[in-house]
Parts: sequence; structure tokens; C-alpha cells
Amino acid sequence: MSKKNFPLSKVYGLLEPGPVVMLTTGGAGRANIMTLSWHTMLEFEPPLVGCVISDSNYSFELLKATRECVLNIPTAELSNEVVGCGNISGRTVDKFHAFSLTAAAASCVVAPLIDECYANLECRVVDETLVEKYNLFILEVLKAWIDPLKKHPQTLHHLGEGAFMLAGETIHLPSKMK
Amino acid sequence: MSKKNFPLSKVYGLLEPGPVVMLTTGGAGRANIMTLSWHTMLEFEPPLVGCVISDSNYSFELLKATRECVLNIPTAELSNEVVGCGNISGRTVDKFHAFSLTAAAASCVVAPLIDECYANLECRVVDETLVEKYNLFILEVLKAWIDPLKKHPQTLHHLGEGAFMLAGETIHLPSKMK
Repeated sequence: MSKKNFPLSKVYGLLEPGPVVMLTTGGAGRANIMTLSWHTMLEFEPPLVGCVISDSNYSFELLKATRECVLNIPTAELSNEVVGCGNISGRTVDKFHAFSLTAAAASCVVAPLIDECYANLECRVVDETLVEKYNLFILEVLKAWIDPLKKHPQTLHHLGEGAFMLAGETIHLPSKMK
Repeated sequence: MSKKNFPLSKVYGLLEPGPVVMLTTGGAGRANIMTLSWHTMLEFEPPLVGCVISDSNYSFELLKATRECVLNIPTAELSNEVVGCGNISGRTVDKFHAFSLTAAAASCVVAPLIDECYANLECRVVDETLVEKYNLFILEVLKAWIDPLKKHPQTLHHLGEGAFMLAGETIHLPSKMK
């Protein structure tokens, strides 16, 4: 893997724009991949992320059991894999094999990184207070990786029912916001 | 206001791609506007949204007191207003006046709509379980409005430190995901 360590203090800038992420789980049984867009930053550092995983998904069981996952951020080149992983259940299919994705070893968690994604965030579940009511897991990012060659990653943003917005131009404004 | 009623069942498609939103509060004292990007959908219908509002913000006090707000979604034409509202506090400035934004009456809440935004979601606070720990408010969207003329709204997506990604091209894929 040619990825570099990415500072935890900058992780918010990867998730705040709202990209589709591919959540990987592992450990109890085979590794799985789930596509999702319902996530938000909750704290800058250590980075905390709120993430909704429906209890009808196989990944829900795996995350409950292992309390670890990786948030992998894909770019437009992976749009078929993003949709493919969202269309079928890991209960019946090995998605890494089915979509020819490469499982790379993480450093802090058992769940694998998707090597083809430009960024990978190794996470552990730190709060399950709202899991029962809203399927909302609170994750702490333990370690982050980035592909240093992807300067302008064209992330995917889900509009619903098969429509995705691709990240466009970046502008710079005199903002005091972090 | 030339906006139309927007079905609550489709609200997720407005927030899921991760746009910057301008949260308006009102009622107790003058109306205020806050720029934020830390939000996620939690349920399709009725639409529930998790929204982080730092307790150092004036809007935090107003939202705690009134338990109502509007999530207004701006497009690139409003980028100066988005940054301007994020750079100063409503404690000292009337932001509607300072940025020449139009406060329109909402139908279910006291907080005003920002007329210049292409979509407006009238919300009430339904759960404060995680406010103390994470500043996370759970909002239910009661009523949604959209500008029917904005077919391809160029939303803003915050990358941090003054950088914003502008919504690019939309693609359609054979997804079974809602």
C-alpha cells in the first residue's frame, strides 16, 4: 500500500463535505463492505464520527460484535463498486471478491482497508447510546491513511435513487471557520 | 416567496450529499443565522436529522430555548454570506441585516426561512439525549420548501479552512439504494 499517514486533526475535512463512504468490518466471520452516506463529524480531535447503520444490514451485526470498522472514501472511478456493494448483502456474497477490491491490513483494527479508496479511517465504536433508537454508532478515528497522489479526489455524494453528485471545483474564501 | 412545498419523503436527498447549511433560529430575541456542516440524516420519514451546534455559539442558546429552527440550504451564489455568517457571532450582529438576507415567515415554526436559499427545512428538536456530551441535537423536519426553478443547485461542501467544494456533475447509476 502506497498510502501515507494522515493527521487526525485534519480528518474532519475528509468527511465534512459529505462523501459516500464504504464501511468495512471484519473479525467475526469474513470481511464485509457497506455503502453509506449517513454520517457526520461530532468532534475535531480525537475525531469522532456519528454513523447510521441500519439494523437490517449484515454490517450492523458485525459492528455490534467487533466494535471496530474502517471508513473508506471512494472516488468516482469506484462508482460501480459503490453501487454494487450497496445493492447486495454480505450475508450471501464476499464483496471484496465479487468486486475485485483489495483488502489491505489496518494497523489498529481487524477490519481491512479498501486499498482502492483514496482515504481510509480506522475506527472503534466508543458510544452506543443511540444505536437502539436511531442505529447511530459513535466512532473514534484511531488512524487515518491517504493516497498522497490524489490531490483533488472526485468524491461521490448521494442524491438518492441512483443519482450521485460528483465533487466539482474547489474555491477558497476568507473564512475563519476551522 | 415563490417556493413550493417539497415532500418530506424526499428530504433525505437534500441533506445526504452533505451541503453546508445555514441554520436559523428565532423567537427568543432576534433571529439568528449559523453556518454549519456537521449534520446527518437519521431517518427517512418523518425525516430526522442529527445536527451538531457548538455550545459556544449563540444559536446553541437560542435552539435550547426555542427548540425550533430552520435548515436553509444555500448555493454558490451565497458563498460570501455563508462565510460571513460563519465569521461573526449573532450576539453582536443582526446577520439578516448585515448580509442583506430576507427573512420569510415559516409555517410551522417561529424561526424564519432565508428566502435566498434554494431549500428550507422547518424543524423542531425532538431529542436532546446527546446534546450535553456531543452538542448533537436530533431534529424532525416538519415542513420542507424548495425553489422549483433551481433544477441543479450548486451546493457548497466545506473542506475546512476556507476551502469549499462546489457541487459538480450529477451521474445516474443502477442503484437499488433509496
